[in-house]
Amino acid sequence: METSAITVGIIGGTGDLGTGLARRLARAGFRVIVGSRNESGAQGAAEALKNLGETSGWGALQVSGASNSEAATAADLVFVTVPFSAHSVTLESIHEAVQGKVVVDVTVPLVPPKVARVQLPEGGSAGQLAQVALGDNVRVVSAMQNVAAAHLNSDDTIDCDVLVTGNNKEARQQVIDILQIIDVRGFHAGMINNAAAAEALTSILININKQYKTHAGIRITGV
Amino acid sequence: METSAITVGIIGGTGDLGTGLARRLARAGFRVIVGSRNESGAQGAAEALKNLGETSGWGALQVSGASNSEAATAADLVFVTVPFSAHSVTLESIHEAVQGKVVVDVTVPLVPPKVARVQLPEGGSAGQLAQVALGDNVRVVSAMQNVAAAHLNSDDTIDCDVLVTGNNKEARQQVIDILQIIDVRGFHAGMINNAAAAEALTSILININKQYKTHAGIRITGV
Repeated sequence: METSAITVGIIGGTGDLGTGLARRLARAGFRVIVGSRNESGAQGAAEALKNLGETSGWGALQVSGASNSEAATAADLVFVTVPFSAHSVTLESIHEAVQGKVVVDVTVPLVPPKVARVQLPEGGSAGQLAQVALGDNVRVVSAMQNVAAAHLNSDDTIDCDVLVTGNNKEARQQVIDILQIIDVRGFHAGMINNAAAAEALTSILININKQYKTHAGIRITGV
Repeated sequence: METSAITVGIIGGTGDLGTGLARRLARAGFRVIVGSRNESGAQGAAEALKNLGETSGWGALQVSGASNSEAATAADLVFVTVPFSAHSVTLESIHEAVQGKVVVDVTVPLVPPKVARVQLPEGGSAGQLAQVALGDNVRVVSAMQNVAAAHLNSDDTIDCDVLVTGNNKEARQQVIDILQIIDVRGFHAGMINNAAAAEALTSILININKQYKTHAGIRITGV
């Protein structure tokens, strides 16, 4: 994969998870557009990442900042990393821009303050809601809910597998290929309904994190 | 834990998972009552397990067969391992017998023929349904949904962690302690609502099993 030929938009890219994804993708050579409702915030995050690349000796990272809708428009492929409370309105704001594209929904439907409790939404999962909201012309893939932002924002090896769901197999494979480039092992995990599993698992990991003072993950065994 | 002082009832114990659980628990010294709607089927399964114990050199296993309700009555602790289609009627049949006890629900709400698709029930999860059906005087613990029956029915090391959910922490701990005796690592994974995660994950593992021709499991990392 010629990463420098692919522009990835990260909607909600100034959050912990978005920042970590931007860092890993940019370091792997992808063109990254950090999106945010707050354009200057996005530009600040992009600058910070470029500076990190220079001071870390990773070379000149291809990163810029933009509004969410501009990032979605310019991108070949879009990650959505927003709190669940902003999920619906964010999808609406990028609806037109992502038609015909692959959208990777990383949203976990946590309901603060009880984030350690599984509370899946009506509709089954955030992933299913995204597919409905964006329509059949968008290939929604759900992924990356179980990787701790703290690990993405470090140089650690990611000791966590990723369950990749979505109704379009080629889109899932594209996401698995991208994850492989940033050293994350992804698994085809079925149709978008199955996003519920990865989304629910995040609350389980939060429980375990509290007990063990860690950032837990999962590995698939037997493969 | 003095395993020989504890009687474990396995409701639906003639199925693949129940057979595997009975095998592991009996070999660890627990008194096991295999329960089934079909009492003679249960007795046959118990005989087969005793024979396996003798031919395998495990000594005289303490195993007997009984109807589900008799098994539930005689047991100190009860595992429920029935197909989801039989969940509700089975819980009703043991309702009186398990009052005041710990019931470990292993049921996965699969909806054949699409068992690779997450289809969680109204009510959130089988675990929640069990807690509601059995009432507040029963400590329902949900566990063991992700361990392949094929592994339980072998002498393999179980390369799969178990997410243990339930509203009563001491009951969860008791189940974790029992699992440890049969060399399975369990994790406190929160209240019974969180059973949805382990139940959904089973369909994910079925997807992966199909692709890799394996019996996949999960491990928690970072702990």
